[in-house]
Amino acid sequence: MKLDKNTKILIIGLGVIGGSYAKALTDKGYNVSCITKEDADIRYAKEHGMISYGTSEVEEELIAASELIIFALYPTTFIEWIEKYQHLFTPGTLITDVTGVKSQVVYKVQEILRGDVEYIPAHPMAGRERSGVEFADPGVFEGANYIVTPTEKNTRAAVRLCKQLGEVLGFLRISELTPEKHDEMIAFLSQLTHCIAVVLMNCNDSEGLEKYTGDSFRDLTRIAKINDRMWSELFLMNKEALLSEMDKFIEEFSEFRTYLANEDGKRMREKMRASSARRSLFDKPVK
Amino acid sequence: MKLDKNTKILIIGLGVIGGSYAKALTDKGYNVSCITKEDADIRYAKEHGMISYGTSEVEEELIAASELIIFALYPTTFIEWIEKYQHLFTPGTLITDVTGVKSQVVYKVQEILRGDVEYIPAHPMAGRERSGVEFADPGVFEGANYIVTPTEKNTRAAVRLCKQLGEVLGFLRISELTPEKHDEMIAFLSQLTHCIAVVLMNCNDSEGLEKYTGDSFRDLTRIAKINDRMWSELFLMNKEALLSEMDKFIEEFSEFRTYLANEDGKRMREKMRASSARRSLFDKPVK
Repeated sequence: MKLDKNTKILIIGLGVIGGSYAKALTDKGYNVSCITKEDADIRYAKEHGMISYGTSEVEEELIAASELIIFALYPTTFIEWIEKYQHLFTPGTLITDVTGVKSQVVYKVQEILRGDVEYIPAHPMAGRERSGVEFADPGVFEGANYIVTPTEKNTRAAVRLCKQLGEVLGFLRISELTPEKHDEMIAFLSQLTHCIAVVLMNCNDSEGLEKYTGDSFRDLTRIAKINDRMWSELFLMNKEALLSEMDKFIEEFSEFRTYLANEDGKRMREKMRASSARRSLFDKPVK
Repeated sequence: MKLDKNTKILIIGLGVIGGSYAKALTDKGYNVSCITKEDADIRYAKEHGMISYGTSEVEEELIAASELIIFALYPTTFIEWIEKYQHLFTPGTLITDVTGVKSQVVYKVQEILRGDVEYIPAHPMAGRERSGVEFADPGVFEGANYIVTPTEKNTRAAVRLCKQLGEVLGFLRISELTPEKHDEMIAFLSQLTHCIAVVLMNCNDSEGLEKYTGDSFRDLTRIAKINDRMWSELFLMNKEALLSEMDKFIEEFSEFRTYLANEDGKRMREKMRASSARRSLFDKPVK
């Protein structure tokens, strides 16, 4: 199959990411339908020019007619959906996803999926701290990273098409990783940061602190507003990698604490200079 | 003394905060001179309309003629400056500062300071992750917090004037705390966050991570670009309070780690819901 403006694209799950995909694709002239649970979300998406057609039913004809199906569901819901409805796909359909953990999803889905349909996994590294289609905004893809995580079961044609989808959506950097490498990386860059934000937000309940806060605390806790169902699923599905990153963090934190307890300004300053230098690598590329 | 457009204001130390004070005050028609180490910084400040007069010398006449002197130096440098040059102040001069820790600075300075000069301590809760006058920007004060930390030695008149200065500078919320309460609060809201950012930046040195990062990691490590001399001084001068906040953080972090290790999704979700609710308190007020 080819991805062009005639390709019949179906998005399943119209939350903040599914909605942002829908809007980005529709804005560029692509043909986007959707299936999602709530009729209100479909009305919202139509009113805001995000989709050409939407339904809250699992419509057999719509699914059969779709050439590219994008799953934007909670990880466990995605797997359940495949188990329950994959008989509705037309042979040759390509499916992809937006799931934030890979190993535990990708191998499972590829194992249960019928042989005449290909699943090419992807993870758009962008999001918002709010959930729901009304917070959809394709602007979050600008300057952001998009990762395709193929396995040996995938064809190069599917990898190429999935990367093309990332380009159409407006991502800046499009990369390829194994599911295992992806999960290791995401445990550090995304899951550990969400743990830290949640913990920081919960570790001091003094009243009135908001009157005195500066931007640093706000920045570190922006993501402490968190979709608890989704993130607990993501953490549990990537448990070993995340525990390992948490342990490395605790170790480094305890080392820094020792320097302070010993009034070892020299070593604290070395750590600060190292962090300053390394942080420069992570500056968002200027367009 | 009164703070009005005829008040002779002297800023000592023209870095990112001193420079932002200078620009904010000059923009509003106040009369601002400065003493700072580098002639290049004075040239920059003049070219950018930040000061009416500047010198890199400790000019006796300038100091004697100043009615309000604002110290924007490293904490230890501030104390040394007072010890060395306080004989140059005219009786009745009011001095204030921008120092990020209070107990160890305020009591020391008030103890050594001559009796005919009053020091009213303040902490503007705003800054930038870069240092130097060329990063000065009074825009950082918009929506930000300003805290006056008087002791029993201070007059109400000085407290009022110091708060008025915060208003002129453009701060949104102006509060009053004891030096001790300030330090406890700052240990959590600002120093702990800087520790976390430095530690997070140093705890995984895998190559190429920047290719995959999302905004959450960038947000949590923005302040990992850090002025090592200033922050190590601030940490050491607030050691006990900071160690106590670090320990509370480690305890809460370890608890969350245990939930994950036990696959206790229910308790993880409770923590996430608590953090989401509490984080709402800290949203920046909309103007």
